[in-house]
Amino acid sequence: MQLAMINDKMLPLDKLDTAYLDRGLYFGDGVYEVVRSYNGKIFALDDHLERFKNSLAGIQIKGIDTEQIRSRIITAFQKAQIPNARIYFHITRGSALRDHNWDDNIKPNFLMTLTDLPDCTPQKLAGIAVSAFPDLRWKKCWIKSLNLLPNILARKDAARKGSDEAILVDENGLITEGASSSFFALFNNTLQTAPLTANILPSITRKFAISSARNLGLSVLEQSLTPAQAVKADELFIAVTTRDIVPAVKFDNIKIANAAPGPVTQKLLVEFANFTQ
Amino acid sequence: MQLAMINDKMLPLDKLDTAYLDRGLYFGDGVYEVVRSYNGKIFALDDHLERFKNSLAGIQIKGIDTEQIRSRIITAFQKAQIPNARIYFHITRGSALRDHNWDDNIKPNFLMTLTDLPDCTPQKLAGIAVSAFPDLRWKKCWIKSLNLLPNILARKDAARKGSDEAILVDENGLITEGASSSFFALFNNTLQTAPLTANILPSITRKFAISSARNLGLSVLEQSLTPAQAVKADELFIAVTTRDIVPAVKFDNIKIANAAPGPVTQKLLVEFANFTQ
Repeated sequence: MQLAMINDKMLPLDKLDTAYLDRGLYFGDGVYEVVRSYNGKIFALDDHLERFKNSLAGIQIKGIDTEQIRSRIITAFQKAQIPNARIYFHITRGSALRDHNWDDNIKPNFLMTLTDLPDCTPQKLAGIAVSAFPDLRWKKCWIKSLNLLPNILARKDAARKGSDEAILVDENGLITEGASSSFFALFNNTLQTAPLTANILPSITRKFAISSARNLGLSVLEQSLTPAQAVKADELFIAVTTRDIVPAVKFDNIKIANAAPGPVTQKLLVEFANFTQ
Repeated sequence: MQLAMINDKMLPLDKLDTAYLDRGLYFGDGVYEVVRSYNGKIFALDDHLERFKNSLAGIQIKGIDTEQIRSRIITAFQKAQIPNARIYFHITRGSALRDHNWDDNIKPNFLMTLTDLPDCTPQKLAGIAVSAFPDLRWKKCWIKSLNLLPNILARKDAARKGSDEAILVDENGLITEGASSSFFALFNNTLQTAPLTANILPSITRKFAISSARNLGLSVLEQSLTPAQAVKADELFIAVTTRDIVPAVKFDNIKIANAAPGPVTQKLLVEFANFTQ
């Protein structure tokens, strides 16, 4: 008899709920997005759906109607009535007995959660600490996949150090991005961040942060930098969907500027808010 | 209201089954093993449990009693009565609302399946085709983790090419291992395979294949080789728990030897069988 066991409970394999046969669980065989709303309005949904499409193509999940996903998001968002919501959704290749190879007719699984976003005003006002961690990730970080073990190990290291975010450093000693954010440094009137070719996610918040910088008349330099260079910046910040721009005022315990959010970052926060209203 | 949606079905978040909150699903935050039995006898369980322990430590999942897992495996194996069983099991960090950071008190989830192994005699007799694919994996492949997207994409590419296994080639042009196997080349009386330092899994079947080779008086060279070198080998084979040693008779459509399993590989198969009896 083919058997399964969930914790202490044995059962025939064919009684196993399909949730336990999800290829997302066995292989991380899926892609995801995190979208947010500001005061009852979903932000940059088109951008997220476009990136989701690219991620799906990147792992060859076919036949997904992103307009149906848009409609599910809007319906659920209206139903939930959460003004500042974190909308997480993923699609996995589907449920099947574990096999590296997949059947092209497998039916994808969709999962979405809508939860309250915690208020990040305190972090924006005080700034956060960040710390460096080796970038252990695979070579296709432009795909927003469910293979996130390197990211969570980095984040845990940061938490142990009292940091809010891990800044990933590749084998060449260059910063790529945060464990779940983009990373920016300001030098005079130039905003510097790793280029999209540096094996990073094409972050949507990164895009809007760059637009905000241009609107303020800053130069933008898409060029990787080292932690040693970063700690000499006038200001540092991270960019992430759930919190947009958050000043980083300590990097590996080294105080940036006066350990307070810098004036340019504060202007960027205001400028960014124009996009989200 | 915090909401969830599974495919088309909306439900309150707190009604979501814990299977849908498994960090294995969101992050691939877990490690696994595949053990097999030969004719009613589980093979190399100690080795697998030892490696599992290392994998758990590698991703900092603590407090797991591997003796309890051993006892679950034996109990389920006796119950299933499958003489030649594939025993898959994994432990994930546990179920919780999605957050990169984890709570140190989270309770791990255990899942196991016992299924019939398909008969691989035809593959052993005829040999298999293999093909090269870029090694896209992360930098800690010694951890047998649930982040397997690079592996399954490689395997799918192989299947499309009519191959049975993908042979991964790193950025230096060197073969690391198969998508779910070790890779070996025979040159005269020397068996060559990548060293454990080449970011590969410490394969248990690899270990027994090496012991088998030594028992036969072969030299063993743990040194990486390129696909161009591999296709000039006298014989090639892969090693994987579920099928032990399988001759590879085509590499990227190039016939190896006479496109038939070589005499040394056949001797190794017999020698390996001594361990499994």
